[in-house]
Amino acid sequence: MQVTSIYRPVQEGLARVEDRLKDVANLEFPFMAKLLSHVLDTQGKRVRPAITLLAANFHPHDEQKTELLATAVELLHIATLIHDDTVDDSDVRRGRATISSVWGRNAAVLLGDYIFASSAAFVCDTGNIRVIRRCSETIMELSSGELHEMAESYNSSQTREQYFSRIYQKTASLFTTAGETGAVLSGAPEDVVQALKAYSYNLGMAFQIVDDILDFDGTEQEVGKPVGNDLSQGIITLPAIMAVERYPEGNPIVELANRPNDEECLRRAVDMVQESSIINDAYTVAHEFSRKSTDALDVLPKGPSSDSLRELANFLVTRRS
Amino acid sequence: MQVTSIYRPVQEGLARVEDRLKDVANLEFPFMAKLLSHVLDTQGKRVRPAITLLAANFHPHDEQKTELLATAVELLHIATLIHDDTVDDSDVRRGRATISSVWGRNAAVLLGDYIFASSAAFVCDTGNIRVIRRCSETIMELSSGELHEMAESYNSSQTREQYFSRIYQKTASLFTTAGETGAVLSGAPEDVVQALKAYSYNLGMAFQIVDDILDFDGTEQEVGKPVGNDLSQGIITLPAIMAVERYPEGNPIVELANRPNDEECLRRAVDMVQESSIINDAYTVAHEFSRKSTDALDVLPKGPSSDSLRELANFLVTRRS
Repeated sequence: MQVTSIYRPVQEGLARVEDRLKDVANLEFPFMAKLLSHVLDTQGKRVRPAITLLAANFHPHDEQKTELLATAVELLHIATLIHDDTVDDSDVRRGRATISSVWGRNAAVLLGDYIFASSAAFVCDTGNIRVIRRCSETIMELSSGELHEMAESYNSSQTREQYFSRIYQKTASLFTTAGETGAVLSGAPEDVVQALKAYSYNLGMAFQIVDDILDFDGTEQEVGKPVGNDLSQGIITLPAIMAVERYPEGNPIVELANRPNDEECLRRAVDMVQESSIINDAYTVAHEFSRKSTDALDVLPKGPSSDSLRELANFLVTRRS
Repeated sequence: MQVTSIYRPVQEGLARVEDRLKDVANLEFPFMAKLLSHVLDTQGKRVRPAITLLAANFHPHDEQKTELLATAVELLHIATLIHDDTVDDSDVRRGRATISSVWGRNAAVLLGDYIFASSAAFVCDTGNIRVIRRCSETIMELSSGELHEMAESYNSSQTREQYFSRIYQKTASLFTTAGETGAVLSGAPEDVVQALKAYSYNLGMAFQIVDDILDFDGTEQEVGKPVGNDLSQGIITLPAIMAVERYPEGNPIVELANRPNDEECLRRAVDMVQESSIINDAYTVAHEFSRKSTDALDVLPKGPSSDSLRELANFLVTRRS
């Protein structure tokens, strides 16, 4: 299934969001226009703005304002990616060279700031303070999550709870905001808002766990990164935590902390995850979040939008890239 | 004159802003708390929040909200400094080691993002959409200004107009916002808002021109950076533009573009500025802005707050560091 066919009920709105995104690059200053076009013309999956538009569909609402918000949500995500790529020194994102690899890290830092602020300007135009505040809290959570990841690198004694809290901050926070603010802005009653918030929180958690599984389980061709890439950077994710729980003695994941650049140790760590039932067990955890995500929709009226949200949850948890 | 004595009419408010700034570092996550304390405990001049508090004093207002805004304005400035130091690879700021020099550029990028977002959260609590929107536009202007500076480095054919537009973006924009939003939030009538906006715009321009003059005119001890530091990084400021206007032939500032690391060429460029009347002429331009700044106050009622704003303009344009 193509993700675009899942987005059917909000297809026109998403096309207008795409136009608004392209418009951000429409500036007189050629250097910035070039950098902005480079990141905004790239077609991502647009999962987050789609969630915002779908979440607004459970109550009669102002479509233009909802699309401004969806644009803001995607811009916030794009800004995060630019700063993350700068931090990780990544060369490629969504099939294109990263800003930092072409124009340097300095340009990437400033461009990311500009896009964060553009996102804030769009969200201001919704005129809804609760929505605006939620978006700024999200940036606090995203950057805290990344700083946590940095502070906890190579710490193999992390618990699942610490991991869950970290992936909430770095990923599920923005998913939650995408769904919650779409519903809030539509003027939906609070129980509908909470249902869509629960949906998108659990979906974000499932999404990140699958991402972390694919780092071990996907091929380099599928994922676009070498297998075990997270671990090679000291990022301890759910499969690694499960492997340490199961094999506390002589575990290569534990050893990596003292031998961070040891290829052989890394290979043994990846093998340990791949050759056990850990991948399956981690998928079980992802599916639990995904199930909670769709369960949360049960209180909402059935129809094309709730069908889409269900299909989206299924798509994201079974994807291979 | 000490800057603190100028702040007399808003002394108590500024002390509460200081407490709020320290509170931002009050987090459970020790790594972030340490980084935040490092940047927030440093005593800056707090010029921008002082302008916000003083600008609000021309109309009866909610002190708590004004202080939230002043805190947001200073946080926005601090976040900018952190990202600028990352971009410039600076080691020292306000007498302390920079975040990037101690904890690395990655931590600095993420910490800057967190502080930008904290600033946005504070400004949201004012509940005033015009004020919130102005703050996000300011971040767009600040980052555009820095990107302009990057794009125009070593371009010695820049005009004064291009320079003025760039320093508006990178410096005067936040000054303008500090004054304008303080007045807006106080509920002052539009003519008072515009007077305080004009004051702070012109003050910001004068401030940056003096900064750029001190880069040639101050001693390393006063300024904390080697003389000609901007030029050595290819940043063409007003004194350099004036030198190129006056000596278009065989000018070492023009030559620097092809010999960016040539110490002897840099020394000749600095000598050319220092040995002519250029420093004086540049000060004349700064004083014109400063005069427009205080002239804008003429429509406001006389009293301690307008006296403070006048003294502040005088202080900033005659400072040596």
